[in-house]
Amino acid sequence: MTSKEALELVKNDIDMVEQFLKDDIKTSVPLINEVILYLLSSGGKRLRPVFLALSAKLCGYNGDKIPAMSAVIEYIHTATLLHDDIIDGAKYRRKRPTANSLYGNDIAVLCGDFLYSRSYITLTEYGAKDVQMILSSAALTMSEGEVIQLLKTGDINITFDDYIQIITRKTAVLFSAACEIGGRLAQVDENKIKALKDFGYYLGLGFQMTDDILDYMGDPAVTGKKNGTDLFEGKLTLPVILMLDMVSKEEKQTITDLFTKKERNEKDLEILLSMMNKYNMKEISEKKADEYINMSLNSLNVFENNQYKDAFIALALAMVGRNK
Amino acid sequence: MTSKEALELVKNDIDMVEQFLKDDIKTSVPLINEVILYLLSSGGKRLRPVFLALSAKLCGYNGDKIPAMSAVIEYIHTATLLHDDIIDGAKYRRKRPTANSLYGNDIAVLCGDFLYSRSYITLTEYGAKDVQMILSSAALTMSEGEVIQLLKTGDINITFDDYIQIITRKTAVLFSAACEIGGRLAQVDENKIKALKDFGYYLGLGFQMTDDILDYMGDPAVTGKKNGTDLFEGKLTLPVILMLDMVSKEEKQTITDLFTKKERNEKDLEILLSMMNKYNMKEISEKKADEYINMSLNSLNVFENNQYKDAFIALALAMVGRNK
Repeated sequence: MTSKEALELVKNDIDMVEQFLKDDIKTSVPLINEVILYLLSSGGKRLRPVFLALSAKLCGYNGDKIPAMSAVIEYIHTATLLHDDIIDGAKYRRKRPTANSLYGNDIAVLCGDFLYSRSYITLTEYGAKDVQMILSSAALTMSEGEVIQLLKTGDINITFDDYIQIITRKTAVLFSAACEIGGRLAQVDENKIKALKDFGYYLGLGFQMTDDILDYMGDPAVTGKKNGTDLFEGKLTLPVILMLDMVSKEEKQTITDLFTKKERNEKDLEILLSMMNKYNMKEISEKKADEYINMSLNSLNVFENNQYKDAFIALALAMVGRNK
Repeated sequence: MTSKEALELVKNDIDMVEQFLKDDIKTSVPLINEVILYLLSSGGKRLRPVFLALSAKLCGYNGDKIPAMSAVIEYIHTATLLHDDIIDGAKYRRKRPTANSLYGNDIAVLCGDFLYSRSYITLTEYGAKDVQMILSSAALTMSEGEVIQLLKTGDINITFDDYIQIITRKTAVLFSAACEIGGRLAQVDENKIKALKDFGYYLGLGFQMTDDILDYMGDPAVTGKKNGTDLFEGKLTLPVILMLDMVSKEEKQTITDLFTKKERNEKDLEILLSMMNKYNMKEISEKKADEYINMSLNSLNVFENNQYKDAFIALALAMVGRNK
């Protein structure tokens, strides 16, 4: 199955998610409406709703809660992006100006708060208690992840385990929650719930690793952002962390200097990229991301083979670029 | 009854709220713990928990949910203060440095997000669906209020109705929610629920008006902040809005110039204060706040006279300084 065919399986669901999002944002403040619609129409791939819908269908769910639960996840996801972009001072996301650069930090902070509240209202209206707890806990964990990431900024002693802890919280918990909720809606047994949680968790890790690789070595025309933002923001990510174990003492000093100085420029990026090239970091990092995607696929063994399972596999592989 | 005696009636409840808050904050990130404890131990008066507990007792509630519901309200209240202080660039609150000035804006944004999520987790764990909806809607409305306030900053054409709309959202909805929840916990009839909602709503308005009067004409040794922050931030509040209807054309131009120029200084504050003095704005504004407190007290007519009702009256009067 191709990833396109996989997406086709949940196309109706995702259309309903889009419609739900449009209808659900009710505010008497036109500017908030404008900002939220700008954010929600940013061309995001709705990956989390796709996996929620696929998980639900894999488990035989036939109910009508996929749009509402997907909307909650998109609200939380969007709120975190909004606040992250403020913290990072990001000017572009997905080839468009960020909300903070268009509307200012103040409005962006408040629209993020609006989205958190909006998510919980929809969650209360449509979600059972177990689902409410999964999603509010995921949002909490994500804010913790951002704090840990901030504290580890420029910290050259960051370990691979630290990195996993950060991307678990930043990315994997919400993918895991999306998949788990699909199973909870269908009320399958805990064995299958665990399988879905694990799938989402490892998928999220592999996905974030791929994102971190693309940040240095992706094609800006495809990713929509310039390379090296993680370096410019002083964030140590997969390719750098893995490389730190391989380089000479002198090279380690160079990396340390790069990440601990006050500001970094294009020349610094060139130095780092040439070192990454020397140590073959693209291939090594991609291999690491692949390991996690394989773990995510292994989690699916508990399910019988069918088109939904095939769709999971196709999309997971596409997310690490293995079927492009 | 004095306000001190009124507080004595719910002292046990508030002690339990304090204990609940200490036990409820669970995070594996020490810095978040530190920031949250700093915020929660700031010497806030726990006014909203006091009114929640009093409302519950007035309605004969004997259950154990007052601490959890109060904690949720304090989390939401604290999260909004945290984000407001960032937006206002505030350096002090209640005589202590703000979290944004101590820990930086980035950490303050994320700790606010943490608190919103924490509030929803506790709300899911302890709250029935009606209470969940009341509080998440209140949080949403508060973020809208902050946006409206931002948009009206420096807007000399702001009306009294605009002002009521802003302080309804910023302050009154959460007081109203606190009182309503007391009644919902006790499961009293809708007539009493409406009375409690109205009481909290008008109380919140009167309280915010008093706060806005004190901002210009309070004693900094008591309020813990220097006078005129609303002027420095370009916010038009009660004393100015009421005065705009009374002044001469020339004076109106002076006020316009003050609020529309780029920055304001102590000299500008002197000009404005002397005009307020000339037009007797302290007394006129206090009379307006009194009107709202009287409306809040009138809402209580549906309840029989007892010590809890007396406590409401004593505290409402204390909040506009009428029994000092």
